[in-house]
Amino acid sequence: MSEHSPRYAYEDFVPGSDWPLGAKLVTAEEIIDFATQFDPQPFHLDEAAGKASILGGLAASGWHTVSMFMRMLCDAYLLDSTSQGAPGIDYVKWKQPVLAGDTLIGKTTILERRLSKSKPSLGFVKLHHALFNQNDVLVCELEHTAMFSLREPSSI
Amino acid sequence: MSEHSPRYAYEDFVPGSDWPLGAKLVTAEEIIDFATQFDPQPFHLDEAAGKASILGGLAASGWHTVSMFMRMLCDAYLLDSTSQGAPGIDYVKWKQPVLAGDTLIGKTTILERRLSKSKPSLGFVKLHHALFNQNDVLVCELEHTAMFSLREPSSI
Repeated sequence: MSEHSPRYAYEDFVPGSDWPLGAKLVTAEEIIDFATQFDPQPFHLDEAAGKASILGGLAASGWHTVSMFMRMLCDAYLLDSTSQGAPGIDYVKWKQPVLAGDTLIGKTTILERRLSKSKPSLGFVKLHHALFNQNDVLVCELEHTAMFSLREPSSI
Repeated sequence: MSEHSPRYAYEDFVPGSDWPLGAKLVTAEEIIDFATQFDPQPFHLDEAAGKASILGGLAASGWHTVSMFMRMLCDAYLLDSTSQGAPGIDYVKWKQPVLAGDTLIGKTTILERRLSKSKPSLGFVKLHHALFNQNDVLVCELEHTAMFSLREPSSI
Protein backbone atom coordinates (compact mmCIF):
# COMPACT_ATOMS: atom_id res chain seq x y z
CA MET A 1 0.00 0.00 0.00
CA SER A 2 1.36 3.41 -0.88
CA GLU A 3 2.13 5.70 2.05
CA HIS A 4 0.61 8.81 0.50
CA SER A 5 -3.11 9.31 0.18
CA PRO A 6 -4.43 7.72 -3.00
CA ARG A 7 -4.64 10.15 -5.89
CA TYR A 8 -8.10 9.11 -7.06
CA ALA A 9 -11.22 8.75 -4.95
CA TYR A 10 -14.95 8.30 -5.59
CA GLU A 11 -15.29 12.05 -6.23
CA ASP A 12 -12.98 11.82 -9.28
CA PHE A 13 -14.98 9.18 -11.16
CA VAL A 14 -17.35 11.61 -12.83
CA PRO A 15 -20.01 10.05 -15.08
CA GLY A 16 -19.15 10.61 -18.74
CA SER A 17 -15.41 10.96 -18.13
CA ASP A 18 -12.88 8.78 -19.98
CA TRP A 19 -9.78 7.27 -18.36
CA PRO A 20 -7.07 6.06 -20.75
CA LEU A 21 -5.49 2.61 -20.29
CA GLY A 22 -1.91 2.58 -21.59
CA ALA A 23 -0.36 0.30 -24.20
CA LYS A 24 0.44 -3.39 -23.61
CA LEU A 25 2.38 -5.45 -26.19
CA VAL A 26 1.17 -9.06 -26.24
CA THR A 27 3.99 -11.52 -26.91
CA ALA A 28 3.79 -15.12 -28.14
CA GLU A 29 5.67 -16.22 -25.02
CA GLU A 30 3.09 -14.58 -22.73
CA ILE A 31 0.20 -16.11 -24.66
CA ILE A 32 1.71 -19.59 -24.43
CA ASP A 33 2.67 -19.19 -20.74
CA PHE A 34 -0.85 -18.18 -19.74
CA ALA A 35 -2.50 -20.87 -21.87
CA THR A 36 -0.20 -23.58 -20.53
CA GLN A 37 -1.36 -22.76 -17.02
CA PHE A 38 -4.99 -21.89 -17.51
CA ASP A 39 -6.40 -22.54 -20.97
CA PRO A 40 -4.45 -25.19 -22.90
CA GLN A 41 -6.55 -25.20 -26.05
CA PRO A 42 -4.40 -25.73 -29.17
CA PHE A 43 -5.03 -22.30 -30.74
CA HIS A 44 -3.67 -20.64 -27.57
CA LEU A 45 -0.53 -22.83 -27.51
CA ASP A 46 0.64 -23.21 -31.07
CA GLU A 47 0.97 -20.83 -34.02
CA ALA A 48 0.06 -23.46 -36.61
CA ALA A 49 -3.03 -24.58 -34.67
CA GLY A 50 -4.04 -20.93 -34.29
CA LYS A 51 -3.67 -20.30 -38.02
CA ALA A 52 -5.76 -23.36 -38.78
CA SER A 53 -8.52 -22.15 -36.43
CA ILE A 54 -11.17 -19.48 -36.78
CA LEU A 55 -8.86 -17.20 -34.72
CA GLY A 56 -6.35 -16.88 -37.56
CA GLY A 57 -3.12 -17.05 -35.52
CA LEU A 58 -1.64 -17.71 -32.10
CA ALA A 59 -4.39 -16.07 -30.04
CA ALA A 60 -4.54 -15.08 -26.39
CA SER A 61 -7.04 -16.89 -24.18
CA GLY A 62 -9.99 -14.61 -23.50
CA TRP A 63 -9.13 -14.94 -19.81
CA HIS A 64 -5.60 -13.79 -20.58
CA THR A 65 -7.00 -10.74 -22.37
CA VAL A 66 -9.12 -9.73 -19.38
CA SER A 67 -6.19 -10.42 -17.02
CA MET A 68 -3.98 -8.10 -19.12
CA PHE A 69 -6.82 -5.57 -18.99
CA MET A 70 -6.78 -5.82 -15.18
CA ARG A 71 -3.07 -4.98 -15.15
CA MET A 72 -3.67 -2.02 -17.47
CA LEU A 73 -6.40 -0.84 -15.08
CA CYS A 74 -4.09 -1.22 -12.06
CA ASP A 75 -1.31 0.75 -13.75
CA ALA A 76 -3.59 3.47 -15.12
CA TYR A 77 -5.42 4.43 -11.94
CA LEU A 78 -6.61 1.60 -9.71
CA LEU A 79 -3.45 1.15 -7.61
CA ASP A 80 -3.44 4.87 -6.86
CA SER A 81 -7.10 5.00 -5.92
CA THR A 82 -9.36 4.33 -2.95
CA SER A 83 -10.65 1.13 -4.64
CA GLN A 84 -12.38 -1.27 -2.29
CA GLY A 85 -12.78 -4.05 -4.84
CA ALA A 86 -15.64 -5.28 -6.98
CA PRO A 87 -18.22 -8.00 -6.42
CA GLY A 88 -18.29 -9.16 -10.03
CA ILE A 89 -18.45 -8.39 -13.72
CA ASP A 90 -21.64 -7.51 -15.56
CA TYR A 91 -20.43 -8.96 -18.88
CA VAL A 92 -17.37 -9.62 -21.02
CA LYS A 93 -17.48 -9.59 -24.83
CA TRP A 94 -14.54 -10.95 -26.77
CA LYS A 95 -15.12 -9.22 -30.09
CA GLN A 96 -11.98 -10.07 -32.08
CA PRO A 97 -8.91 -12.29 -31.53
CA VAL A 98 -5.91 -10.86 -29.68
CA LEU A 99 -2.91 -12.22 -31.59
CA ALA A 100 0.79 -12.49 -30.78
CA GLY A 101 2.42 -9.17 -31.62
CA ASP A 102 -0.71 -7.10 -31.06
CA THR A 103 -0.56 -4.03 -28.86
CA LEU A 104 -3.57 -3.36 -26.66
CA ILE A 105 -4.69 0.06 -25.56
CA GLY A 106 -7.96 0.95 -23.97
CA LYS A 107 -10.14 3.28 -22.01
CA THR A 108 -12.55 3.27 -19.13
CA THR A 109 -15.73 5.33 -19.39
CA ILE A 110 -17.58 6.16 -16.17
CA LEU A 111 -21.24 5.28 -16.68
CA GLU A 112 -22.88 6.19 -13.37
CA ARG A 113 -22.28 6.32 -9.64
CA ARG A 114 -24.15 6.32 -6.38
CA LEU A 115 -23.35 6.63 -2.71
CA SER A 116 -23.73 3.65 -0.43
CA LYS A 117 -26.84 3.86 1.72
CA SER A 118 -25.29 1.94 4.59
CA LYS A 119 -21.71 3.31 4.52
CA PRO A 120 -21.39 7.09 4.12
CA SER A 121 -17.68 6.78 3.26
CA LEU A 122 -18.29 4.46 0.28
CA GLY A 123 -19.67 4.76 -3.23
CA PHE A 124 -20.39 2.49 -6.19
CA VAL A 125 -19.07 3.38 -9.63
CA LYS A 126 -20.21 1.62 -12.81
CA LEU A 127 -17.42 1.42 -15.38
CA HIS A 128 -17.35 0.45 -19.05
CA HIS A 129 -13.99 -0.70 -20.41
CA ALA A 130 -12.98 -1.02 -24.08
CA LEU A 131 -9.78 -2.59 -25.39
CA PHE A 132 -8.50 -1.92 -28.91
CA ASN A 133 -5.60 -3.32 -30.89
CA GLN A 134 -2.98 -1.30 -32.82
CA ASN A 135 -5.36 -1.09 -35.80
CA ASP A 136 -7.99 0.60 -33.64
CA VAL A 137 -10.17 -2.50 -33.76
CA LEU A 138 -12.29 -3.16 -30.65
CA VAL A 139 -11.17 -6.56 -29.34
CA CYS A 140 -12.84 -6.74 -25.92
CA GLU A 141 -15.31 -4.83 -23.81
CA LEU A 142 -16.62 -5.34 -20.32
CA GLU A 143 -18.55 -3.59 -17.59
CA HIS A 144 -18.43 -3.80 -13.85
CA THR A 145 -19.32 -1.88 -10.71
CA ALA A 146 -16.49 -1.07 -8.32
CA MET A 147 -16.49 0.33 -4.81
CA PHE A 148 -14.40 3.40 -3.99
CA SER A 149 -14.04 5.25 -0.72
CA LEU A 150 -14.84 8.96 -0.71
CA ARG A 151 -12.01 11.41 -0.17
CA GLU A 152 -14.26 13.39 2.13
CA PRO A 153 -17.41 11.58 3.22
CA SER A 154 -19.52 14.72 3.09
CA SER A 155 -18.08 16.11 -0.13
CA ILE A 156 -20.87 15.09 -2.53
CA MET B 1 -5.43 -31.36 -30.99
CA SER B 2 -6.21 -34.93 -30.04
CA GLU B 3 -6.17 -37.43 -32.86
CA HIS B 4 -9.28 -39.28 -31.79
CA SER B 5 -12.76 -37.86 -32.18
CA PRO B 6 -13.68 -35.67 -29.22
CA ARG B 7 -15.62 -37.52 -26.57
CA TYR B 8 -18.23 -34.80 -25.99
CA ALA B 9 -20.29 -33.03 -28.64
CA TYR B 10 -23.33 -30.73 -28.69
CA GLU B 11 -25.61 -33.75 -28.30
CA ASP B 12 -24.13 -34.55 -24.88
CA PHE B 13 -24.83 -31.19 -23.26
CA VAL B 14 -28.37 -32.00 -22.19
CA PRO B 15 -30.24 -29.19 -20.40
CA GLY B 16 -30.47 -29.91 -16.68
CA SER B 17 -27.40 -32.13 -16.59
CA ASP B 18 -24.50 -31.44 -14.19
CA TRP B 19 -20.83 -31.80 -15.12
CA PRO B 20 -18.37 -31.99 -12.22
CA LEU B 21 -15.22 -29.86 -12.20
CA GLY B 22 -12.43 -31.56 -10.25
CA ALA B 23 -10.45 -30.24 -7.29
CA LYS B 24 -7.81 -27.50 -7.53
CA LEU B 25 -5.60 -26.57 -4.54
CA VAL B 26 -4.81 -22.84 -4.53
CA THR B 27 -1.32 -22.11 -3.21
CA ALA B 28 0.08 -18.85 -1.87
CA GLU B 29 2.81 -19.01 -4.51
CA GLU B 30 0.25 -19.23 -7.33
CA ILE B 31 -1.79 -16.35 -5.89
CA ILE B 32 1.29 -14.14 -5.66
CA ASP B 33 2.60 -15.16 -9.11
CA PHE B 34 -0.70 -14.30 -10.79
CA ALA B 35 -1.13 -11.05 -8.88
CA THR B 36 2.43 -9.94 -9.64
CA GLN B 37 1.69 -10.24 -13.34
CA PHE B 38 -1.90 -9.14 -13.58
CA ASP B 39 -3.40 -7.67 -10.41
CA PRO B 40 -0.77 -6.28 -8.02
CA GLN B 41 -3.12 -5.05 -5.31
CA PRO B 42 -1.61 -5.52 -1.82
CA PHE B 43 -4.17 -8.07 -0.58
CA HIS B 44 -3.29 -10.36 -3.52
CA LEU B 45 0.48 -10.06 -2.90
CA ASP B 46 1.01 -10.16 0.84
CA GLU B 47 -0.47 -12.22 3.67
CA ALA B 48 -0.40 -9.35 6.18
CA ALA B 49 -2.08 -6.94 3.77
CA GLY B 50 -4.69 -9.59 3.02
CA LYS B 51 -5.39 -10.12 6.70
CA ALA B 52 -5.76 -6.37 7.21
CA SER B 53 -8.26 -6.13 4.33
CA ILE B 54 -11.90 -7.09 4.05
CA LEU B 55 -10.73 -10.32 2.33
CA GLY B 56 -9.31 -11.72 5.57
CA GLY B 57 -6.15 -13.33 4.19
CA LEU B 58 -3.91 -13.68 1.14
CA ALA B 59 -6.67 -13.81 -1.47
CA ALA B 60 -6.61 -14.77 -5.14
CA SER B 61 -7.40 -12.06 -7.67
CA GLY B 62 -10.91 -12.57 -9.02
CA TRP B 63 -9.31 -12.92 -12.45
CA HIS B 64 -7.08 -15.65 -11.08
CA THR B 65 -10.13 -17.48 -9.76
CA VAL B 66 -11.86 -17.44 -13.14
CA SER B 67 -8.61 -18.44 -14.86
CA MET B 68 -8.30 -21.44 -12.51
CA PHE B 69 -11.95 -22.18 -13.29
CA MET B 70 -11.08 -22.21 -17.01
CA ARG B 71 -8.37 -24.80 -16.40
CA MET B 72 -10.81 -26.92 -14.37
CA LEU B 73 -13.26 -26.68 -17.30
CA CYS B 74 -10.56 -27.68 -19.80
CA ASP B 75 -9.53 -30.70 -17.74
CA ALA B 76 -13.09 -31.81 -16.95
CA TYR B 77 -14.51 -31.87 -20.47
CA LEU B 78 -13.67 -28.95 -22.73
CA LEU B 79 -10.39 -30.27 -24.18
CA ASP B 80 -12.11 -33.53 -25.11
CA SER B 81 -15.09 -31.82 -26.71
CA THR B 82 -16.10 -30.27 -30.02
CA SER B 83 -15.89 -26.76 -28.44
CA GLN B 84 -15.70 -23.94 -30.94
CA GLY B 85 -15.11 -21.22 -28.37
CA ALA B 86 -17.30 -18.60 -26.74
CA PRO B 87 -17.98 -14.98 -27.64
CA GLY B 88 -18.13 -13.75 -24.06
CA ILE B 89 -19.34 -14.16 -20.50
CA ASP B 90 -22.83 -13.20 -19.33
CA TYR B 91 -21.69 -12.41 -15.79
CA VAL B 92 -19.17 -13.27 -13.08
CA LYS B 93 -20.00 -13.04 -9.37
CA TRP B 94 -17.19 -13.25 -6.83
CA LYS B 95 -19.18 -14.28 -3.77
CA GLN B 96 -16.46 -15.02 -1.20
CA PRO B 97 -12.66 -14.69 -1.05
CA VAL B 98 -10.51 -17.54 -2.37
CA LEU B 99 -7.65 -17.79 0.13
CA ALA B 100 -4.25 -19.47 0.03
CA GLY B 101 -4.70 -23.12 0.99
CA ASP B 102 -8.29 -23.33 -0.25
CA THR B 103 -9.30 -26.17 -2.54
CA LEU B 104 -11.76 -25.34 -5.30
CA ILE B 105 -14.24 -27.78 -6.76
CA GLY B 106 -17.15 -26.98 -8.97
CA LYS B 107 -19.79 -27.99 -11.41
CA THR B 108 -21.28 -26.90 -14.68
CA THR B 109 -25.05 -27.07 -15.13
CA ILE B 110 -26.43 -27.01 -18.66
CA LEU B 111 -29.17 -24.38 -18.82
CA GLU B 112 -30.38 -24.50 -22.42
CA ARG B 113 -29.25 -25.11 -25.97
CA ARG B 114 -30.22 -24.32 -29.52
CA LEU B 115 -29.02 -25.17 -32.99
CA SER B 116 -27.41 -22.53 -35.14
CA LYS B 117 -29.74 -21.25 -37.83
CA SER B 118 -26.93 -20.54 -40.26
CA LYS B 119 -24.61 -23.51 -39.59
CA PRO B 120 -26.32 -26.92 -39.32
CA SER B 121 -23.21 -28.48 -37.79
CA LEU B 122 -23.11 -26.03 -34.86
CA GLY B 123 -25.09 -25.41 -31.69
CA PHE B 124 -25.09 -22.93 -28.81
CA VAL B 125 -25.07 -24.20 -25.23
CA LYS B 126 -25.73 -21.94 -22.24
CA LEU B 127 -23.76 -23.04 -19.17
CA HIS B 128 -23.89 -22.05 -15.53
CA HIS B 129 -20.74 -22.69 -13.48
CA ALA B 130 -20.40 -22.74 -9.70
CA LEU B 131 -17.15 -22.94 -7.74
CA PHE B 132 -17.06 -23.99 -4.08
CA ASN B 133 -14.28 -24.15 -1.51
CA GLN B 134 -13.45 -27.11 0.76
CA ASN B 135 -16.12 -25.93 3.22
CA ASP B 136 -18.79 -26.18 0.51
CA VAL B 137 -19.08 -22.38 0.40
CA LEU B 138 -19.95 -20.91 -3.00
CA VAL B 139 -17.05 -18.62 -3.92
CA CYS B 140 -17.74 -17.79 -7.57
CA GLU B 141 -20.38 -18.29 -10.20
CA LEU B 142 -20.59 -17.36 -13.84
CA GLU B 143 -22.59 -18.04 -16.97
CA HIS B 144 -21.68 -18.12 -20.60
CA THR B 145 -22.82 -19.48 -23.94
CA ALA B 146 -20.38 -21.72 -25.80
CA MET B 147 -20.44 -23.11 -29.32
CA PHE B 148 -20.09 -26.86 -29.89
CA SER B 149 -20.11 -28.81 -33.12
CA LEU B 150 -22.65 -31.59 -33.48
CA ARG B 151 -21.42 -35.16 -33.60
CA GLU B 152 -23.88 -35.85 -36.39
CA PRO B 153 -25.44 -32.75 -37.95
CA SER B 154 -28.86 -34.34 -38.33
CA SER B 155 -28.91 -36.12 -34.98
CA ILE B 156 -31.21 -33.73 -33.09
